[in-house]
Amino acid sequence: MDLDVAVVGGGVSGAYSAWRLQQDRGKQQAIGLFEYSDRIGGRLYTVSIPGMPNVKAELGGMRYIPTEHIMVADLIKHLKLQTVDFPMGAAPPVGSNCNLFYLRGKHLRLHELADPDKVPYNMAWSERGLGPTNLQVQVMNNLYPGFANLSLCQQMQVKVFGKPMYEYGFWDLMFRVLSNEGYAFMRDAGGYEANVANACAVTQLPATEYSDTTQFLTLADGYDMLPITLAEEFNTRFDGKVAKGKRVHMNHRLASFEVGTGDYPYTLHFVPTVSDENRRTSDAEGKDARTVTVRAKQLILAMPRRSLELIDSPFFDDPWLKENLSSVLIQSAFKLLMAYETPWWRSLGLVAGRSVTDLPVRQIYYFGTEGEQENGKPFLNSLLMASYNDISTVPFWKGLEIGGRYEGYRPACLEEGVENWIPLTPYCATAEMVDVANRQIATVHALPQVPAPYSAVYHTWNEDPYGGGWHEWKAGYRLDQIMCQMRKPVKAQEVYIVGEAYSLGQGWVEGALDIAESTLQDFFGMKPPSWLDPSYALMPNPCPPGDPCVGCGDLDGCIPCFNCGAMLSAITPNCLCAVEEG
Amino acid sequence: MDLDVAVVGGGVSGAYSAWRLQQDRGKQQAIGLFEYSDRIGGRLYTVSIPGMPNVKAELGGMRYIPTEHIMVADLIKHLKLQTVDFPMGAAPPVGSNCNLFYLRGKHLRLHELADPDKVPYNMAWSERGLGPTNLQVQVMNNLYPGFANLSLCQQMQVKVFGKPMYEYGFWDLMFRVLSNEGYAFMRDAGGYEANVANACAVTQLPATEYSDTTQFLTLADGYDMLPITLAEEFNTRFDGKVAKGKRVHMNHRLASFEVGTGDYPYTLHFVPTVSDENRRTSDAEGKDARTVTVRAKQLILAMPRRSLELIDSPFFDDPWLKENLSSVLIQSAFKLLMAYETPWWRSLGLVAGRSVTDLPVRQIYYFGTEGEQENGKPFLNSLLMASYNDISTVPFWKGLEIGGRYEGYRPACLEEGVENWIPLTPYCATAEMVDVANRQIATVHALPQVPAPYSAVYHTWNEDPYGGGWHEWKAGYRLDQIMCQMRKPVKAQEVYIVGEAYSLGQGWVEGALDIAESTLQDFFGMKPPSWLDPSYALMPNPCPPGDPCVGCGDLDGCIPCFNCGAMLSAITPNCLCAVEEG
Repeated sequence: MDLDVAVVGGGVSGAYSAWRLQQDRGKQQAIGLFEYSDRIGGRLYTVSIPGMPNVKAELGGMRYIPTEHIMVADLIKHLKLQTVDFPMGAAPPVGSNCNLFYLRGKHLRLHELADPDKVPYNMAWSERGLGPTNLQVQVMNNLYPGFANLSLCQQMQVKVFGKPMYEYGFWDLMFRVLSNEGYAFMRDAGGYEANVANACAVTQLPATEYSDTTQFLTLADGYDMLPITLAEEFNTRFDGKVAKGKRVHMNHRLASFEVGTGDYPYTLHFVPTVSDENRRTSDAEGKDARTVTVRAKQLILAMPRRSLELIDSPFFDDPWLKENLSSVLIQSAFKLLMAYETPWWRSLGLVAGRSVTDLPVRQIYYFGTEGEQENGKPFLNSLLMASYNDISTVPFWKGLEIGGRYEGYRPACLEEGVENWIPLTPYCATAEMVDVANRQIATVHALPQVPAPYSAVYHTWNEDPYGGGWHEWKAGYRLDQIMCQMRKPVKAQEVYIVGEAYSLGQGWVEGALDIAESTLQDFFGMKPPSWLDPSYALMPNPCPPGDPCVGCGDLDGCIPCFNCGAMLSAITPNCLCAVEEG
Repeated sequence: MDLDVAVVGGGVSGAYSAWRLQQDRGKQQAIGLFEYSDRIGGRLYTVSIPGMPNVKAELGGMRYIPTEHIMVADLIKHLKLQTVDFPMGAAPPVGSNCNLFYLRGKHLRLHELADPDKVPYNMAWSERGLGPTNLQVQVMNNLYPGFANLSLCQQMQVKVFGKPMYEYGFWDLMFRVLSNEGYAFMRDAGGYEANVANACAVTQLPATEYSDTTQFLTLADGYDMLPITLAEEFNTRFDGKVAKGKRVHMNHRLASFEVGTGDYPYTLHFVPTVSDENRRTSDAEGKDARTVTVRAKQLILAMPRRSLELIDSPFFDDPWLKENLSSVLIQSAFKLLMAYETPWWRSLGLVAGRSVTDLPVRQIYYFGTEGEQENGKPFLNSLLMASYNDISTVPFWKGLEIGGRYEGYRPACLEEGVENWIPLTPYCATAEMVDVANRQIATVHALPQVPAPYSAVYHTWNEDPYGGGWHEWKAGYRLDQIMCQMRKPVKAQEVYIVGEAYSLGQGWVEGALDIAESTLQDFFGMKPPSWLDPSYALMPNPCPPGDPCVGCGDLDGCIPCFNCGAMLSAITPNCLCAVEEG
């Protein structure tokens, strides 16, 4: 097979790249999209649990922030996908104020975090009375007022305590401005350990998106409908004459590729894979294992770090690429979802959003009830994300993966014709996992016992080929430059790397789309899409097309893009920009 | 070069294997020992800090327990190496009772842990008043009285809560018998995070070697003198005719090996390496980079998991080996040592041993004062292990690796002719690292400030080729069987894997020696050495030579080795052995 562009990786960035390229280049171009598994979506993965077809179980990414994630929001509008609120609490004025915290053996409602005498952390006077997000905002404004409002270019120039901000790990920096107990509170009560890990302070410090008032949206039919819709449009729509399945190649693992010359310099070797009834994917065996060879003029690797590391190619011997592929941390994450016949948590005043604990479940999200969804069936069946945890608690749950599958039971309300109420996914929750989680959930809610769920599914985002749930820049790397160059890491080669991993929107679909779109504009000569807000600025900037990062080449070279106005220069004497502009 | 036996890896297990083989087989045999770096010792690495030549700075393993580590103790006696106490506190009756804990912002002396009202953890009634080690002993005896006294063979048969003990991760198991606060106290106050991580409960549950009364020894000239002495004797002693350096090949990295047939079936390809003035080792370049090829009849890989994974060979395609190489966790660790002109901690009643905190330094060890050592110089210069930390705190310190080197200052007392008081090691402590550590040390000791150290060195045990500081069995693996077979993983091949990683003495030199010796006895037909206590039982047992693990082949097959007597069968109704014996 000879292709103009081979796109490898069926997640958001791959599906988007293939879709956009085909729309732009039309039928003259042969474009192929290749996916390792039997599933389009990558780290977006929606499952329907029988008994609640209208409450979607998200095993991966689950939401977006419409006011911040402009590309996601505009693309979803363009594709006419139906959105729904992803509420973080009850209706106003209660909101998330009554959601629970169970920390150091003590129960608190969110609004009680404001009472320092109730919070079981021995915090400094200056830290008392603040919730974890407000604590971080206070710290950020202490270190550098308005840091979140600077451009990346400016943020990379900011120094604190005599050292560039980007050379600090977030934890190392917190240690200069918070007590250890303040940091422990931020870690425990914040819910996400990755947010306070030692990733680059430039990207972590302003990351306060989980504040108590942030508004989230998601897709009514599941968040993975975004990449699935893109892949389907790419696969079938183009002039209506190409048979379905011709362009999207599922169950193809890119094992290696060679770099040559001529019209089709890239020779790709795909190993066919098979996915079993549990959707576990592995290499095909026997006569089905014959490697598929594809030649391409251009190659887009739409994959995260670990997936790239699993490919065998001399391309990765490039010294710059070798050094900078490891410029991001791979963060592990774990989600366990359990379905009950009633939303028993409502009796405690818990409607939506999350409760947070230092028990290994860490975050519990209250999802919807079937009967309350638009066009929902008249069932009380309700979904709980029993655990959303990351990094240091993941091994606790990995240790419970061995043992018999959790069978659940047939709920009283179930759609007709459904025989199996536990959906098949690569990771079957074990009886012990569900038992341990349910006991922790009872503890967090101060109940002697909670009902057994009728169904349970989980997903662990640390296995190959994904490597982790998301990525974070390491301290000490020039992420502004790396982000630009990673899109086309080797000057002489038309090989592109896109996706969330090396973006400024790590952990979000927005990061994946942004990198994909900026690659198409800067290296494939494409114009911004008509559906995108014309004021939207792509993140890897300033990067003139074809010559990444001239603008950010060094600290001094960045001065021309300085545009923060009077406020900044007045209050930030330690800003290089401000100093050099006088 | 054609060898009878090629031993790769210049740590304890490699040096021991080469030494023992040569002693046993004599001059008929051509044996070679190959080491990647310019250093014999592996994860034993002793440095002398100027100003205190008689107080050894141990960057890796630092001690042994003479009553438990019989092979180490007997070998050291046989080699006539001088030992010294490794004290864990003041002289009796004070001992470690006055050593400090700084937890959750509160100071305690060790003896105060017995007062539950002083301990800032919200523990269950049954947990109160116990220190972390006693808590673990209580839990172990609650789960299975006398578990530590069983043989491995018996331990593998024990069930708790209806599941074999070996299928539990330690953390998962603790969650069934401890409150979360009890577990947090065990983790924070125990000092070693690895000890409470989710490794296999069979090996972690009885691991209470850091009790307040354990007696440790070390070597007066540094612990790495053990492998260095072995390697030197191997290199030069044999019949006095072989020139020095002929048998030990430093700066050789085993990049790959092929498996063939004939007299010398193994063809090894070594890439020459160079070590710079800081002893950082990397591949040689240019004309010095020519690969060295060695053929061998037998091959001993004396390496940990990560080093093995870095070797390219079809040998590792064996399905059993592929599956079980990852049966152990690689635990990261970090040590920072700082030298002061006075032992300022003495004024607080701190003589030796450690203080423990939940700050990122985690464990502080008070090492000796030069003037108090045997034949010591009349200097007050004193050594502090400012931080010994593992797993989740390692990233905190890794974030401080960037930046200017810590220069220290010339101390008043220094040996003649010494120009540089900071020893050169692969990892130069940065000024920021020392500053951050010193401020935490001041906090732990409730002092406004402590003096700046005149010298500092550190080591991070998570980089290639070591991968980590030590290993722990994962939950759910038949470690008894794997331990036996890993020594000769592929039946048809004379390739052996030895070392601490797949032993029953993980993290200790004893584990490395035990696996090496049992390999020599079971597969090389060697008799136990004359210097070893004849009652010493090698750990990978029962394993008849040449046919690993017949005895432990399955649970039933283990019954004949049952020898625990009446006590066990009376109180352990859930023991398979007991049940089947009636």
